[in-house]
Amino acid sequence: MTKKPALFTSLSPALIHLYDISDSIVVIIDILRATSTITTALYNGARSVIPVDSISRCVETAKQINGITAGERDGKIAEGLSHGNSPFEYPSDFIGGKTLVLTTTNGTRLLQMALDQKAKEIIIGSFNNLSAVCNHVIEKKQNILLACAAWKDRVNMEDTLFAGAVISRVKQHFHINCDSSHIAETIYKNGANDLFGLLQRNDASHYHRLMNFGLEKDIRYCLSIDTANILPVYKEGHLVVL
Amino acid sequence: MTKKPALFTSLSPALIHLYDISDSIVVIIDILRATSTITTALYNGARSVIPVDSISRCVETAKQINGITAGERDGKIAEGLSHGNSPFEYPSDFIGGKTLVLTTTNGTRLLQMALDQKAKEIIIGSFNNLSAVCNHVIEKKQNILLACAAWKDRVNMEDTLFAGAVISRVKQHFHINCDSSHIAETIYKNGANDLFGLLQRNDASHYHRLMNFGLEKDIRYCLSIDTANILPVYKEGHLVVL
Repeated sequence: MTKKPALFTSLSPALIHLYDISDSIVVIIDILRATSTITTALYNGARSVIPVDSISRCVETAKQINGITAGERDGKIAEGLSHGNSPFEYPSDFIGGKTLVLTTTNGTRLLQMALDQKAKEIIIGSFNNLSAVCNHVIEKKQNILLACAAWKDRVNMEDTLFAGAVISRVKQHFHINCDSSHIAETIYKNGANDLFGLLQRNDASHYHRLMNFGLEKDIRYCLSIDTANILPVYKEGHLVVL
Repeated sequence: MTKKPALFTSLSPALIHLYDISDSIVVIIDILRATSTITTALYNGARSVIPVDSISRCVETAKQINGITAGERDGKIAEGLSHGNSPFEYPSDFIGGKTLVLTTTNGTRLLQMALDQKAKEIIIGSFNNLSAVCNHVIEKKQNILLACAAWKDRVNMEDTLFAGAVISRVKQHFHINCDSSHIAETIYKNGANDLFGLLQRNDASHYHRLMNFGLEKDIRYCLSIDTANILPVYKEGHLVVL
């Protein structure tokens, strides 16, 4: 019997330094809504998504490559950018063949941290591409870190939930000596049949924030499974379909 | 109606800086086994427990006050100290009237962090004094941070479980806008009727470590509710019964 690869979960970017990821696939998880939107835009035919860490950088990069600027601050399209963070803003007749330059707070920063720690591979995870993520990590047979973007470093429900969804599907292929992973799986199992209800019942903080912005439709979409089932991977500054 | 105080949970010392604790009661949680042992020693009549951050400091402090040195490294009594981390080492006929100078890795460091962040009050939480902790925070009507000591900053099951036990008992008295707290409560509810079984089923990492050291009896005791139901509070370098 060959030794199984290891699976760990980092519940917050403030914990990612605890894991040696130089030989791991890192799954970036920012369910509401960065990784859901990235996955959806690519599924709908975007050529690539370029994640950037600031509004000025977003504008500058988009200018150079004739890309679409996108990003929100406090639930509104950020000043100077043309689009927001909603997956519904990127249907195929709009985004097909184009490059999206996206700035987000939590997800982009986490991706940069994974790069700084020399992750072996970086992929994007969301409920919209759950099967693609699971199939990929099972096939690759390599160590994996499920990296939650959280909210300003505070652990959040929806990213933990997604980590648990992955674990419940792939666990027999990995060695898991990680309480965060067991916690995530328990949380997922506890609410798997009604993810929206779980966020609602627990009054999850970011769910609450987005509901206040009138974004229930977004939340429901971001919890829908395999609705954009492709695998975004990071390659030289771009997120592209594998 | 007066506004309810806030309750937050920090799942790891690496997250405690995210919380402003200058107006909060901080509950230090290190179930296996520091806070269980501290609580038990005080319940059994220890005059006080002095937490220190190193073996050399432990020896030095105990010498000055004629105290008992205690601490482990890798499951064994640390060289130069006379006792270990097990609550069973401190029955009343031994520890009554004495001062215990205890060095632990995770719990002591967390307590120091809470001091550095100017916590309003620091108390010690364990299953052995669950009711005393809950009654205190309900009576005080102040903001509270449940601070898990974790394992070398990695989130662990047993500390999360205890945070959840407190939350399930006190939640109607607090405003809780904190996903970590909701996660902890779900984990606790999921296993409340068999805490030992929960650690076992999840192969919790520190449970596993202690079982390998032959410490099942310790683990079972550390999960027993209200078996040493007093409240340790921190006062000028000492933990004493309130």
